[in-house]
Formats: sequence, structure tokens, C-alpha cells
Amino acid sequence: MTGATSPQVLAHKLDTAAGAFEQWSRLRPPDRAPVLEAIASALEEAEPKLVVLADEETSLGEARLHNEMARTVFQLRLFAQVVTRGEYLGATIDHADPAWPMGPRPDLRRVLEPLGPVVVFAAGNFPFAFSVAGGDTASVLAAGCSVIVKVHSGHPKLSAATAEVVQHALASAGAPEGLFDVVFGTEAGRAVMVDPRVKAGAFTGSIEAGRALFDIATSRPEPIPFFGELGSVNPVFVTNAAAERRGPAIVSEFVGSFTLGAGQFCTKPGILLVPESAELVDRLPGAVPDEPLTLLNDRIRGSYASALGELRDTVGVRVLVDGHHASPTVLRTTSAELLSAPQAHLREVFGPAALVVEYADESELIEVAKVIDGQLTASIQGEDDDVVAGELIRVLAAKAGRVLWNQWPTGVSVTFAQQHGGPYPATTAPATTSVGTEAISRFLRPVAYQNVPQHLLPPALRDANPLGIPQRAC
Amino acid sequence: MTGATSPQVLAHKLDTAAGAFEQWSRLRPPDRAPVLEAIASALEEAEPKLVVLADEETSLGEARLHNEMARTVFQLRLFAQVVTRGEYLGATIDHADPAWPMGPRPDLRRVLEPLGPVVVFAAGNFPFAFSVAGGDTASVLAAGCSVIVKVHSGHPKLSAATAEVVQHALASAGAPEGLFDVVFGTEAGRAVMVDPRVKAGAFTGSIEAGRALFDIATSRPEPIPFFGELGSVNPVFVTNAAAERRGPAIVSEFVGSFTLGAGQFCTKPGILLVPESAELVDRLPGAVPDEPLTLLNDRIRGSYASALGELRDTVGVRVLVDGHHASPTVLRTTSAELLSAPQAHLREVFGPAALVVEYADESELIEVAKVIDGQLTASIQGEDDDVVAGELIRVLAAKAGRVLWNQWPTGVSVTFAQQHGGPYPATTAPATTSVGTEAISRFLRPVAYQNVPQHLLPPALRDANPLGIPQRAC
Repeated sequence: MTGATSPQVLAHKLDTAAGAFEQWSRLRPPDRAPVLEAIASALEEAEPKLVVLADEETSLGEARLHNEMARTVFQLRLFAQVVTRGEYLGATIDHADPAWPMGPRPDLRRVLEPLGPVVVFAAGNFPFAFSVAGGDTASVLAAGCSVIVKVHSGHPKLSAATAEVVQHALASAGAPEGLFDVVFGTEAGRAVMVDPRVKAGAFTGSIEAGRALFDIATSRPEPIPFFGELGSVNPVFVTNAAAERRGPAIVSEFVGSFTLGAGQFCTKPGILLVPESAELVDRLPGAVPDEPLTLLNDRIRGSYASALGELRDTVGVRVLVDGHHASPTVLRTTSAELLSAPQAHLREVFGPAALVVEYADESELIEVAKVIDGQLTASIQGEDDDVVAGELIRVLAAKAGRVLWNQWPTGVSVTFAQQHGGPYPATTAPATTSVGTEAISRFLRPVAYQNVPQHLLPPALRDANPLGIPQRAC
Repeated sequence: MTGATSPQVLAHKLDTAAGAFEQWSRLRPPDRAPVLEAIASALEEAEPKLVVLADEETSLGEARLHNEMARTVFQLRLFAQVVTRGEYLGATIDHADPAWPMGPRPDLRRVLEPLGPVVVFAAGNFPFAFSVAGGDTASVLAAGCSVIVKVHSGHPKLSAATAEVVQHALASAGAPEGLFDVVFGTEAGRAVMVDPRVKAGAFTGSIEAGRALFDIATSRPEPIPFFGELGSVNPVFVTNAAAERRGPAIVSEFVGSFTLGAGQFCTKPGILLVPESAELVDRLPGAVPDEPLTLLNDRIRGSYASALGELRDTVGVRVLVDGHHASPTVLRTTSAELLSAPQAHLREVFGPAALVVEYADESELIEVAKVIDGQLTASIQGEDDDVVAGELIRVLAAKAGRVLWNQWPTGVSVTFAQQHGGPYPATTAPATTSVGTEAISRFLRPVAYQNVPQHLLPPALRDANPLGIPQRAC
């Protein structure tokens, strides 16, 4: 059941996914809401069983996993609201206008419509919220697309069990067969990516794997969009004033954030820039818990050890807290060393490690901000009257999808204004987000209808507005 | 002045474009409006001179070129309105909410910000509206990005003259140096595409050239979005009832549309599906003008002859009107032949040629609609009570960016609801449009600000709303 999906079985899954798309994409968007709600309720019901399975396969702990399930269920229900409200459709109506300045304008009406079947590559570090029934799946289904999830090899039994819960809920809710399915194995995932019926891919994982899939997506005879969320070091910039006034709190909050979930978050703050004059660095060793953390699996343990080793061996990097690979590790260097070899210092270490960078002058914060690659997040610990803050925020906004002030990047809320994305290599599609209600936009494309009679228009574009959605009339 | 741009000169242009971006991107969006207006006014002033040059280099005729200039100027002024209104910024404010169901929500505010310097590849068939100061340039500048235009080899003198007008207007309006520049030559265009400072590309042209540039954009160390508008045959589906009731009008309108601008429009209707029982095909020869049309240049003449030759040599294709390559040509075949070899029949012939396809039964319209590739447009000539219309529109909406009813695809209005795009190979980015106000979105990316104090937020996100723009509060 969790073995690699065979080509024959895969061919059938692709056929039914394409067939399901034909039906599901034509449903009025609000009619997708009860189906999303049904998945949410079924997951809640299965929660005790699924959390036990998840903990067995990921060691993330039941408390965290229950929280993650709450988030997963919330996402599905939030997208049920989104499709009901219909704002996401971007319905725009230009009535015919003979006096339009560039020449008579026809009646033109535009709405966002579903792309087609989508493949989602599940992540290993969020076995619920970014996996089989996670945010990508929820937004794909909400958009009106069918979905094939390539399950993550780190939690195959949980994936199979979750898929069963989702499929049962879909069948009970009367959804078309094949609307949601899962495949196992790298080869099956690749085969789905190159199938001409599949029209988009979504992914959360490493830069290496994500770039390989991006290259497949863009080199197809018909290239397709690939929404990959890859890597990020999520730097935190501490100003002089903040270090002086709130040093102890910053240290303990930083440790809490970079060790959360054993440091296995894509928004883990991997770099902390602090003034060399402050006692911040001296406080750190006492604040880091000396207890072993369990990583997700052997593969992660291996890549953590190797990435950490490379960073530790970088010229100018010294050990501040030596975790011996099992408890948290903190390395230290200076901003001068970092600026002399940015790529070597700014590498992501997935796991409970961080690099503290000491600077002499606040102007170096701007210099570092200018050399960093694209990030999911960039944070400032500052004071309202910090002179450097304005410029630092503007430079960081050009590099990151989310800029935080006096808060920590882990714990990504699911809201309307959330942006979980950023310039490459944070993502392969910086104009999109994989968290929050805007995530639905990834799986839509606009269609304009010119001079089409009312009864032939999609309901979202009719003058009578049967869906009761916002229609922008220009 | 119109010779290939040297690497040294190019390096300087890239430097100043990057520097100009730093300044321009930080302007409050409404402050970009006067600069767009200044370009529009300068073009109007130079119109007599520019139209003469354009006609010399493109043979498109002064009447058409004056119309195109009106469109070009209108686009710039429309984007001046767009940046002033600020709706395009998508400003969204989630106030902090301790009762948010998935856990306390921080203050999160999201706005769209400019991507970076952009390279625009000018088109040959619209020397104003899709060239140096065309829609791509206007939307790039409106978005807050700097632009380097790779000029089209078909009208180099006009391009240089237009660039001079634009640069003079920009200097007078106080815009930063390097905000807009042009480069000449294929190698210079490629070099701009691979420069790490350049963050997006826009293109209008052939499938071959567009795909080559797309491949460059996506295989960079940092891939960038590439908005290519490539090829389309823009099929027109005539129902039985429409052919019976409006046959003569359909024939003459079709001829007008496919011969407009000597058939050198990306929205030229290249395929007309008609019932075999109607007299429509018999009427066509009499409706096609037997006068030679002048194509843009030798390269277009060559590729027209070769594409037309291949289509004429396709099995089952016969000649209905033989234009001998200089006056319009109409070929004919049957839907059965087309369905037996769709790729061979559905090839774009850029120039004054069209293929008429006779069908026996209206169900074949659906079958043909299902096999066509991605299109910029698909049109139906039908009657309100046509049984086939509903299903045909739904199938065509899945294939085209714009679906028309009883109108013709040439003449693309610039409006709010316009969608000039479509699935590959119509474009490389089906979620975007290159015409209409939404074209600005291509050059923007969202940034979320978490817990950032009012005075450090971009003006668009402040509670006091100093720009007076729509702010969505959730």
C-alpha cells in the first residue's frame, strides 16, 4: 500500500484525475465549500489515530502534532470561506463603452478559472499542514483543480492513512472520483510532473530537489508553473538599541525560535546579527538547552551533520555552543568574515543550529542585508527610534517575502495578508505564496469573455450576480 | 547609433538600470504618474516624425500607425491612472487577533512591490504599441521597475528615435538616469537576460524565439519569470444557425479580420470552422480582395512563404483562394482531416492566410475545441439559442485567454478586464496578461510586514492611508 506506485496504476490515477477536473472545475465555486468542510471534519474525527501514526514516523511529539492538525483543519475551512465569498475570482466587468478613449470598447468580463490537474509534493517536516491534506492540497481543491499528491518518504504510513480519510470524506460528499489521489516513490512523482494533462506543480523541500523538479517543469514541451518553496536562512538583525535594552529577552526568544521543532522549520532563524559590544553572545551558551533533540529521520540527520560540518569549517567560524549533533549548536563569526564570503556563511542548516554574527557598526547590517539571497523571512529586533530601521526594512523587503519587527519568523499564521514566499532560492515563484488565502491564486488563470450573452457567461460574471460575489465594474 | 550594443556599453546600461531601480522603486506609486504622462505627451508631440519613420521601416501605412500611436499614448495614461488609484497594490491588512481560530494572529500587512530591472523584447508587428514605448514598457515603469528594451531588428531607426523621445521626456520629468534604456542586437538581448541584476523578461514574438528566451530565463542560476507571448491560430467556430442566418456578414467580417494589417496580428483568426452544408465557403473567393499586401520585412516574407507552403502541402488541404504569396490566401480542409492530424493543421501562418475547415455535425466543433493547443483567443459565431454554445464556450475557456461571441479577435482593447494571454504556446505564463491594466502585476511581488510600526510601513499599508487607496481589512 505504501510501495512505489507502478506505471499502470499511475496511468489510471492520471486518467481519473483528468476526468475529475472536468467535473470539479465546472462546479460553482461555493459548491466546493461543503466538500472542503467534509475533509476537515473527517480529519478531526481521525485525529487521535493520525497523530499517533505521525509521531511514530516523525518524532515531532503529540502536542506539536495536535497543533499542526488544528492548523490543517483550519486551512480547509478557511478555503471553504474563500470560495464562498468569491473575492478570489477577481470578477471584473468592463461594460461596452463607445466613448472609450482608444476606440469603442466591447463588453469584456474577466474571471479566474482553474488551471487543470495539479501535482503536490508533500514536505517531510509538516506531516499534516504541508503534506497529504495540507495547505497546497486545500488550495488546489479550492481553486477547482484535481490533485495528485506525491507523498513524502518520511511518513508513508501516515500518508496512506490520511489519504484514506480524505478519499472516504470525498466519496461521502459526492466529489468526483479521482479528485484527490496519492502516489508513492520518486519515479512516480517525476512521471506525474511530465504528464501533459498535469498543469502545475507545488513543492516544499530542499533547494536541490526543488530545483530539479523546477527544471523538469520548465523543460516540458508545454512548460508548467512550478511553485517550489526551497531554502532560507531567515536572518534576524538586532540593532544596538534593542540589544542594550532587551538583550536577555532576545536571547531566550531566539533560542526558542531556532530550536522549535528541532530547528526543522523553513522559517527557522538561522542567522542572528548582534552588536559585538553587547553581552548578547555571552548570554547565549547559558540559554541553549543541553538536551538531545530527535530529528525527523536518518536522511535529515545525515544532511544536518554534513551542512553543519561545512559551516563549522568555514574560515572565521568558531563554535559557541557545541551540541555534538544531538542538542542545539550555535556557531559564531563576524560580519566582516560573512561579507568576505557570503555564500559560505549564508547556507541553510536544516536542524537545531544557528550562526551568530557580530558586527561593529550598524551600517554593516545594511551591507549584510544587501548581500543575502532571497529569503522567506527577514526580521529586525529594533527600537522605534532606531535610525537604521527605515533603510534596513526597505533593503530587506527587496530580499524577503515577509519582514518582521520584534517578532520571530517561526509560527506562520494562516491569514489573508500572509506571504510565505520570496525571491529565489526561497521559492521558484516569488510572486506567489504557499500559505494564506492568496495561495489559491497559484492554480488559477484569467479568462476574458467578450460580448458573451448573459446565459452563456460563468455565473461569476453575470449582471444578476447569482453568486453574490464582489464584481469590479469599471 | 542602431548598431549592436557593445559589452562595455551594455555593462554601463545595466549598472544605471540597477541604480535607477533603487530610486524609482521607492517612489510613492502616485508620484510615478506624472512621469508616465510626460512620456505620453512627448510621444504625441513627436508623432508626425515617428509615424513617417515607422511607415518607412514597416510599410504598415500611416492611418494604422496613427491609430497605434493613439493606443500607445492611451496605455501610458491609463497606467498613470492605475498607479494613482493604487488598487493594483492589493493592500491587505490583517489586524492582530488573539481569537484567530488557529492561534493568535499577529498584525500582518501585505502589499505588492516592484521586482527589479526588467528586460523587454520589442515586437516587430506593432512598432509603437508593443515596441520601445509600448504596453510592456508602460507596465514595467508603472510597476516601479526600470526597463531595458531590446529593440526589434525590423525598425531600428524608429526604435532609436522613440528611445530619444522617451529619454528626453524622462530627463525633463526628473526621472532617475537609466530608468529606461534600449539595446540593439541579439547578443546584447541575451546578455541582459542572463545578468543577475535583471529580475524579469517580457517578450512578444515567435514560438521559436520566445521558447529560446524562456529556456534562458528558467535555466539561470537564479531563474526569473519570463512573460512570453508566442503563437496562436485563434480559431473561429461558426455554428449551423449562425452560418444560415448571417453567412454573408460572417464571410466579409472574417476576411476583414484575417487580412487586417496584412494578417500580421497575433490575434489573427487563422482557422474558420463552418458547416459543410452552408454556402459560406463558396462565398469566400468573391470576398477576398485580390490586391497585393506588403509584409513587414524580408524575414517575415520568408517565414510566411514557408509556413504557408507547409500548410498547403498538408494531406487533405486544398487551395480555395490562391494569393500567390502577395494577396490573401485561403486554404480549405475538413474537420475529419484536421482531427486526424491536429498539429499539422493548427500551425500559425503569420501573414494574410487562413484555413477554412468544413464540418458535418456541430459535435465536431467540440472535438476540434478539445484538440487545439493553448490560444490567445477563441471565437464563436453563434445564435443565442444554439444548443452547442454552452459546452463549446466551456471547452474553449479552458484553452484560450479570451473567448469571443459574435465579434472578431483582432483589435485588442486596453481595459481593466482585458486578458491577452493563454495556455502555452500562446504564452509562457498563462496566469498573466500583456494587455490591459492587469499587465502591471507581472512585475510585482508581494511582501508581508509583520508587527511593523506605522512609521516604518510603506505608505500603502499605514492605518492613516496617506495614498487614499483601497485597503482590504480582514
